[in-house]
Amino acid sequence: MTEKAVVLFSGGLDSTTCLALAKSEGFECHALSFDYAQRHQAELVAAKHIAEALNVHHHVLPLPLNQIGGSALTDNTIDVPEYTAASDIPVTYVPARNTIFLSFALALAETLGANTIFTGVSHVDYSGYPDCRPEFIDAFQVMANLGTKVGVEEGSIEIKTPLIHLSKAETIRLGHALGVDYALTVSCYQANELGEACGVCDSCALRKKGFKDARLPDKTRYIHTK
Amino acid sequence: MTEKAVVLFSGGLDSTTCLALAKSEGFECHALSFDYAQRHQAELVAAKHIAEALNVHHHVLPLPLNQIGGSALTDNTIDVPEYTAASDIPVTYVPARNTIFLSFALALAETLGANTIFTGVSHVDYSGYPDCRPEFIDAFQVMANLGTKVGVEEGSIEIKTPLIHLSKAETIRLGHALGVDYALTVSCYQANELGEACGVCDSCALRKKGFKDARLPDKTRYIHTK
Repeated sequence: MTEKAVVLFSGGLDSTTCLALAKSEGFECHALSFDYAQRHQAELVAAKHIAEALNVHHHVLPLPLNQIGGSALTDNTIDVPEYTAASDIPVTYVPARNTIFLSFALALAETLGANTIFTGVSHVDYSGYPDCRPEFIDAFQVMANLGTKVGVEEGSIEIKTPLIHLSKAETIRLGHALGVDYALTVSCYQANELGEACGVCDSCALRKKGFKDARLPDKTRYIHTK
Repeated sequence: MTEKAVVLFSGGLDSTTCLALAKSEGFECHALSFDYAQRHQAELVAAKHIAEALNVHHHVLPLPLNQIGGSALTDNTIDVPEYTAASDIPVTYVPARNTIFLSFALALAETLGANTIFTGVSHVDYSGYPDCRPEFIDAFQVMANLGTKVGVEEGSIEIKTPLIHLSKAETIRLGHALGVDYALTVSCYQANELGEACGVCDSCALRKKGFKDARLPDKTRYIHTK
């Protein structure tokens, strides 16, 4: 029987590469997206199209992160800043977001009988988010195996992070080799409803640099091209 | 300045005792409840009344656990069983529920600037749920401090579980001493819309035994009294 995996999937560059990789490894993939009233709703539209193109199961769960607030990505009273090279944790950090996303992935995995969860977090280009670090992922896996029926009774839940040590350019090269069509993906923190990227936020800056460093054409549709 | 705490709060016997205890310790309490289309919606009504009576902040977040399923508490196609003394993980176990609840408590704590999270889980009367065990809570705390801005920058997030080693009778005696009105609380897995308890599920059986062992009057309104 084909082994199942739950893949956290935003419709962005990293999670699409991660999903394509999980599929190439032979898993029956269940892509999991969240509708959390994020500014960049265009990524959900992108996610739907990509999941169809890759022919994988796609689950979309509504989450009330906007009722918690505390981030420029979920609170409309906080502006998304332009990219700077500051090393502080940025205002686009969403409190405990990856913990919440992984918790739902864990619940879905347990319900489906999957032992593997993929997430496309990268420690290299993580923009200062604490919940993209390897030590966080390791601690989540320990917790997951203590707190679930499947962990306790049936063996181990594994959280796979194939991109965690890859630069954006390396991720793009990997996805390119897997045949990923990056024109379908949306990374921008404030993409418009057509999926056009702002070109100036952290996420756009990292994406642009990634394609440049990978020496591959960047088909992203940017509104600003500075 | 008064220190803030987020208190996971279902409106049941344990979490109400935990909330009263947190308040008695001087915390500015933010009670957090979830509307996850649970069978026992009466507990949400109870939670609202109790939060008002205790004069604490009350947050209610909708969660799509019913879209994941896998439990008698969230999936209407699975019946709630009558109490048995079996030691297996029961069908009322909700996949990764405490992980999800604690993750949202963590996000709210971070947004509010709270460093303390209370949860009324009990290892003694936990009905076989893996996510009520001390080792799970400890692992969650480690993960929480690695995965959040507040954990990384400002010191430690603490998950407090004051009831974890208490029997139901001991919890009831503690709450009684704190002046908790247990008639307001709802524990039953399938209480009706009037807040009346079935009297036959695991949760009712543990509650009945608790009052009996504590030698205190049980004001719970049971439908069945077998």
